[in-house]
Amino acid sequence: MTDIKLADYLFTRLRQLGVDSMFGVPGDYNLRLLDFVTPAGLHWVGNCNELNAAYAADGYGRIKGLAALITTYGVGELSALNGIAGAYAENTPVVHIVGTPPRPLQAARTFMHHTFSDGDYRRFANMSIHITAAQTRLTDAATAPERIDYILQQALIHSRPVYLELPDDMADPPSSAQEPQVLAQILERMYSAQRPFILVDGESTALGIVEQLDSLIKATGWPTWTTVYGKGLVNEQLPNAHGLYGGAFGDKPAQTYFDEADLVLTFGPHNSDTNSYFFTTIAKPEVAITFSGTTVKINNDTFYDMSARNILSNLLQGLDSTRLVKASAPPKSELSVANIQATDPLAQTNFYPLVNPLFRDGDIILTETGTAAHGGRNFKLPTGSRLFGAVTWLSIGFMLPATLGTALAQRDLNKNTSSKSQTILFIGDGSLQMTAQEISVMIREKLNIIIFIINNDGYTIERVIHGRKEKYNDVPYWRHAQALSYFGADEEHVAKNTFTARTCGELQEVLGNENITNGSGVRLVEVFMGREDVQGALLYLLNKQLAQEAEQK
Amino acid sequence: MTDIKLADYLFTRLRQLGVDSMFGVPGDYNLRLLDFVTPAGLHWVGNCNELNAAYAADGYGRIKGLAALITTYGVGELSALNGIAGAYAENTPVVHIVGTPPRPLQAARTFMHHTFSDGDYRRFANMSIHITAAQTRLTDAATAPERIDYILQQALIHSRPVYLELPDDMADPPSSAQEPQVLAQILERMYSAQRPFILVDGESTALGIVEQLDSLIKATGWPTWTTVYGKGLVNEQLPNAHGLYGGAFGDKPAQTYFDEADLVLTFGPHNSDTNSYFFTTIAKPEVAITFSGTTVKINNDTFYDMSARNILSNLLQGLDSTRLVKASAPPKSELSVANIQATDPLAQTNFYPLVNPLFRDGDIILTETGTAAHGGRNFKLPTGSRLFGAVTWLSIGFMLPATLGTALAQRDLNKNTSSKSQTILFIGDGSLQMTAQEISVMIREKLNIIIFIINNDGYTIERVIHGRKEKYNDVPYWRHAQALSYFGADEEHVAKNTFTARTCGELQEVLGNENITNGSGVRLVEVFMGREDVQGALLYLLNKQLAQEAEQK
Repeated sequence: MTDIKLADYLFTRLRQLGVDSMFGVPGDYNLRLLDFVTPAGLHWVGNCNELNAAYAADGYGRIKGLAALITTYGVGELSALNGIAGAYAENTPVVHIVGTPPRPLQAARTFMHHTFSDGDYRRFANMSIHITAAQTRLTDAATAPERIDYILQQALIHSRPVYLELPDDMADPPSSAQEPQVLAQILERMYSAQRPFILVDGESTALGIVEQLDSLIKATGWPTWTTVYGKGLVNEQLPNAHGLYGGAFGDKPAQTYFDEADLVLTFGPHNSDTNSYFFTTIAKPEVAITFSGTTVKINNDTFYDMSARNILSNLLQGLDSTRLVKASAPPKSELSVANIQATDPLAQTNFYPLVNPLFRDGDIILTETGTAAHGGRNFKLPTGSRLFGAVTWLSIGFMLPATLGTALAQRDLNKNTSSKSQTILFIGDGSLQMTAQEISVMIREKLNIIIFIINNDGYTIERVIHGRKEKYNDVPYWRHAQALSYFGADEEHVAKNTFTARTCGELQEVLGNENITNGSGVRLVEVFMGREDVQGALLYLLNKQLAQEAEQK
Repeated sequence: MTDIKLADYLFTRLRQLGVDSMFGVPGDYNLRLLDFVTPAGLHWVGNCNELNAAYAADGYGRIKGLAALITTYGVGELSALNGIAGAYAENTPVVHIVGTPPRPLQAARTFMHHTFSDGDYRRFANMSIHITAAQTRLTDAATAPERIDYILQQALIHSRPVYLELPDDMADPPSSAQEPQVLAQILERMYSAQRPFILVDGESTALGIVEQLDSLIKATGWPTWTTVYGKGLVNEQLPNAHGLYGGAFGDKPAQTYFDEADLVLTFGPHNSDTNSYFFTTIAKPEVAITFSGTTVKINNDTFYDMSARNILSNLLQGLDSTRLVKASAPPKSELSVANIQATDPLAQTNFYPLVNPLFRDGDIILTETGTAAHGGRNFKLPTGSRLFGAVTWLSIGFMLPATLGTALAQRDLNKNTSSKSQTILFIGDGSLQMTAQEISVMIREKLNIIIFIINNDGYTIERVIHGRKEKYNDVPYWRHAQALSYFGADEEHVAKNTFTARTCGELQEVLGNENITNGSGVRLVEVFMGREDVQGALLYLLNKQLAQEAEQK
């Protein structure tokens, strides 16, 4: 990779398109960019104000076919808007380059000057949408050249102004030769770590590093957890895979180990309240190395324009496993069916352990927002299986149509293979009512799906949050056992594939049924649980409400 | 009503709040407003440009507690934005008054100067949303004072700039003494009319003139039609009520009468393609008098700031019925059951005439987008009943939850009355699948609703538009007869209130059933019709497609 500065790239492109003079006014957030103007062979025309610069650029563009001006964020760019709008009205291609605050300040929503001191850095760019043919915002070195080419093309195609945001720290960034130094720092920290902790979060999928992580987890042998969103991205059959890390609401030994860790490697963090158990899965900066979209953060230093994929690739090549500590991991907590009796009524605590052995390699398991998603977090997943649970958006009703989608994807992938993997949905009665009609499409498409409806008579998760006995947490009464019939399955299929269970024994019988273990098409299992039956973090909420009620008496 | 000019009102308010000097720059669209500045006792400060005017206003506001500047649309206001944003950042209440193009030019989307020549007049106002605490746009004399007070309050409450759009034709409008002259013109046209036509459209409800229209229709005795959206707003038991006017797709005698009319009084027009039968129910300007939101249009002259309600009230008082022509109306087309045999299969042509006698005074009838809405247009409605059909938005799935809503409204209204009116829905199988689950809420709420499901095996209306035999116009197979049971009704209710009919005789039997004529709760009637069974304008589309198919062979 040749090392071209971003500002050089931009100005070279402009010169190639016939721009020889650059209009504008200096400002706090464009100064580093201006350093490159004259060296690039451009004639700098310092105007008296930005409106005049925009008017002048319009005139220049009418003769030369393209023009550009540089203003500074907020106070500079807004003065130019009337000139930009005029260029739009009368078809002059003008590139409005706005120097914006450095990326770390924007990311931290710092209350800088030239802003409304509210952390919103998007406002002025949104104003320019109305008067430019296209807009782009440079955010990282990897995609910047493509975005610059795009925006210049748009100016020429439409013969109208365009808007280009260039953060002040990108014009002249540290050389990309920085990556080896970052890698060296990471390796040094890994070799010196005595209590290492690996945390795999869900954005690792978007980073394209899931396979590399598998290698890393095997190569280090270090204890590894996932977040809620990361669940299913780590092979839970590995000896050092510990399942879900529930932060302050999870397993105590894991929590102690996390608190005392001297190195937490986090991959693909997605730090919403729900995914991070109210931010308690986020490591202290002094022990953290975090791999995000285009940054790596080591302690409090953020390194921009980093590719997690590149770094991991080099890391796996250079890693000397003999220099790594053999970490003494905390004991694992696993689902157990040891104390369950056949006559026990079904409950959150016994249901998930009982159903877990049903899963096979390659299965797709979906757990809808509510008690199902909480329960599913402790499943031990077979190799190659995937789990989709409630992460951040939590729009109830999502998971049933999403099950339709994943099952179709699975069928397409399994074509021409001998895989017998299937799709299994766990959903509460409240969520099911939102989007139930898609069951009829599942039936028409003849998909192999098992649906467990957890019938606990309403919005149990809302009950435990607020309004334990309120009517608004009730849902209409439906006869779920009639769903397959109503939604069009043939009578024989309905009779063979509709199940209900109220006790552990009844569930075990259902799970042993040939049509569940080895059947096909849509199978529906209605399981009954208590209206306020919850576990884990949800139990904490319920108890809080019960305590408040007791106090009010 | 004292006659205060709008500009006087605004400037008086500003002076009351301590604004004695006014900043700004003249421009095409604020000149008529500027005429009022000095007479109002304000000191006019003409600035060199708008940015400077905004900076100056900010300084003034910091001392006096409120400031104002006047700019012109587009080229003026955009130059001021940086100054306005600064006032936002540092908390100065500045009223940015923008003179905009006259309302008729904006309404006609005229390609005026100071615009992008695309008819979009909202663009620049949308830019100011980002940098002002509140925005308002004056559109009519009736609401202007309230909006001015609101926007000034917002400036003071937030101590931040606000944005006020004032169309050039509103600063100094013709006196509201114009209303009597408009009324006189209308009466004159009414007295001279030989072939008058009254058309009641759906926005009459929003204008609050439905009762006045009833009086007008009785007082004139003139032949009256409704549009699709106006259906149900005219008492169809009146001798001069002709039902729906279907434009070029309707009844021929009505069309001839419309084409040769010398006066068409249109109330509450809503001119979407669907509601106006592809714009064929809109009268020629030379014969039209049209009453809209705040305008009355006579031929090609639009009179602004008119209240249809005031005018109708004065018109009804001043009308001398003896001077009106006794119009010779065309024959009425009415639904007839004369040629229907009991063994005939149910079809669009016989279903609606058969079911029509079921309706009683005060019933609410809903016809979902699709064949149901088309069929329902020819119902003859009892006094005091309402009909909601497909008008413009046409989002299939709407009508079933809307039925829930209207039935609840009806129950609330009927409380403490002896009314036995009910709610009746006509819906196709495709639309029903969108939102069917709300049937369970209807059941839980014990509402008196009859649902006719027109089961024609898919999206019939889409089939006739395009893709007559394509799979994408199919829907999953459902067993509608099981709906009441699946959605939780008790077994006795299900047995008594689920009906199906395939022939006219079967339907007549259902319609005679005590549980339909005099029952309660949700009753469900599934009627079967052909996959491509349509009538009227839809038949035209189907035949067009059949012709194309024949050509391709």
